Amino acid sequence: MNAIGNRQAGIIERYREFLPVNERTPHLSLHEGNTPLIYADRLSKELGLNLYVKYEGLNPTGSFKDRGMVMAVAKAIEEGSNTIMCASTGNTSAAAAAYAARAGLRCIVLIPSGNIALGKLAQAIAYGAEVIAIDGNFDEALRIVREITATHPITLVNSVNPYRIEGQKTAAFEICDALGSAPDILAIPVGNAGNITAYWKGFKEYHQAGKSGKLPHMYGFQAAGAAPLVKGETVEHPETVATAIRIGNPASKEGAIAAVRESDGLFEAVTDEEILEAYRLLARSEGVFCEPASAASLAGVLKLHKAGNLAAGSTVVCVLTGNGLKDPNIALKTVAAEPKAVPATQEAVMQIIESAGM
Amino acid sequence: MNAIGNRQAGIIERYREFLPVNERTPHLSLHEGNTPLIYADRLSKELGLNLYVKYEGLNPTGSFKDRGMVMAVAKAIEEGSNTIMCASTGNTSAAAAAYAARAGLRCIVLIPSGNIALGKLAQAIAYGAEVIAIDGNFDEALRIVREITATHPITLVNSVNPYRIEGQKTAAFEICDALGSAPDILAIPVGNAGNITAYWKGFKEYHQAGKSGKLPHMYGFQAAGAAPLVKGETVEHPETVATAIRIGNPASKEGAIAAVRESDGLFEAVTDEEILEAYRLLARSEGVFCEPASAASLAGVLKLHKAGNLAAGSTVVCVLTGNGLKDPNIALKTVAAEPKAVPATQEAVMQIIESAGM
Repeated sequence: MNAIGNRQAGIIERYREFLPVNERTPHLSLHEGNTPLIYADRLSKELGLNLYVKYEGLNPTGSFKDRGMVMAVAKAIEEGSNTIMCASTGNTSAAAAAYAARAGLRCIVLIPSGNIALGKLAQAIAYGAEVIAIDGNFDEALRIVREITATHPITLVNSVNPYRIEGQKTAAFEICDALGSAPDILAIPVGNAGNITAYWKGFKEYHQAGKSGKLPHMYGFQAAGAAPLVKGETVEHPETVATAIRIGNPASKEGAIAAVRESDGLFEAVTDEEILEAYRLLARSEGVFCEPASAASLAGVLKLHKAGNLAAGSTVVCVLTGNGLKDPNIALKTVAAEPKAVPATQEAVMQIIESAGM
Repeated sequence: MNAIGNRQAGIIERYREFLPVNERTPHLSLHEGNTPLIYADRLSKELGLNLYVKYEGLNPTGSFKDRGMVMAVAKAIEEGSNTIMCASTGNTSAAAAAYAARAGLRCIVLIPSGNIALGKLAQAIAYGAEVIAIDGNFDEALRIVREITATHPITLVNSVNPYRIEGQKTAAFEICDALGSAPDILAIPVGNAGNITAYWKGFKEYHQAGKSGKLPHMYGFQAAGAAPLVKGETVEHPETVATAIRIGNPASKEGAIAAVRESDGLFEAVTDEEILEAYRLLARSEGVFCEPASAASLAGVLKLHKAGNLAAGSTVVCVLTGNGLKDPNIALKTVAAEPKAVPATQEAVMQIIESAGM
């Protein structure tokens, strides 16, 4: 598969020495990875930190999931599969469908019926995924996917697929490559906990290979209404505006707990209000528009800073997992109503601009 | 302004020798540009071409407008302005608002009242733009913006701002850098015609500087219901599903006409059906999800190919101007209805998967 381009090859080609890749693994790519590490000018000054955001929303399908999915789909092809399958109503299905389209595989997405906002599936549908709804909830959908993929020549690409974490760890490599070493603190939203597990694996491997002189402290932030790792117990009915991390029983909790323990890190909860405040702040003072769940990382940093728990001058990287365009309606909720129209004259418009009220 | 990052600096830093930049121009950046040039595997084989897509949807706000806007806002700052203003209900307002937020400027967006889908303004609102609606249409909004910016210390950032084209031309540089020279054909959607003008300027400058051994033929594609450059006359009531190019009287028509004439290129119209077919094809067979308007470039190439008007083996680059996430509802319209739910059993789901009906 050809992948010439000025934005360089994707993660499989760039980091193949660190990935489970061999000569039979196809060079699958949509130019994922190599996302911007943006220095947060104003927030850094305000907080007395060296604060960066790793903007994963500029991956091909708009989230970090592309890194793991390109790896999972490439391995599926290598193993002779021609169909992939997942249970997902969000970013996972978008990434799966895109790489399946790129590679010419079938992609089957299982969803619970009823109350599904079809809008969340718009991407998967655009990429040609075949969507099947079942009379059941998400857990049942995942169970059926596991059963079918265990007994048919169909590859499971939900997060239990081990190649997902292998691909996702490349974001840690990129941060080290950009900064010269790992940051002091890596702040990351934690839902299903695969991503914090992957970053920690990446930092450790790069450190071991001599590519980073140090290891970061891993700070995992959960939404207060969906914080099983903060509370130390499963949350039966997780609730939060940050839908991408609304998970009560994370699949990768062991990995996340190990990352925090081994790195002398922490788990902390942030409220929906704190998440939305950080979400607005990122867009309005740095020009970076992310998914609400992404902002949990900055919300956590702001909370720790307020409590005096961050050393001045620390280098902190906040992972922003997805693009704000995935859920634009949240942004609109911050506006009361459509602005009242004024007469079509220079004077009327200038009066609004000059009024302090705006 | 600091802009360290692994995805390298933005366009001002990378191409400063070709841009109207001096020591007082701030290094403004959201890491725009350096977007993927993706080789279209399957379509290349099918059509007998070397077909690439330049996926501008991975710019920071999801469209090519970021390239011009970073330049316009940097120059506004250099000239001492602290407020920018535009009339826009779409991609321009998103880009203006983002760079204003990044730079700490005010951003005023003027829109016509009534029938405005606030959703199209979600990004601008998220980035903190101040939106003012007037009792009037888009042309009146633009007139008021021009009046106000001519008489107040507020900078106009609509496409008449000459720095916009300067920034936008950098996409042509990137294509030459990636391919080693300009392609045989550059296929591009044409609405307001600033982008085709900018690409042609970029190709000529790079050629003159010895950075590309040749110049491309510029192929501009318009929607059939909004094709003033194909018809040679203003279209009073332009209509097309490709809203980003629904323009009846392009601001940069002289530039576009010169680009086509000087490059021995062409203008051609494509129907909404052809645009939507190309839009689906890109997502489903290459894994690239773009705005409907973006797909006009591929739709045009497919039309010319069908008519036997493309030389076999030509290197063709189709510009995809924006991200499909800007208008996800179009993708959903290709699906009849929410899929009918089946029982939550392995058997019921396998029956669907194995049926030819999907």
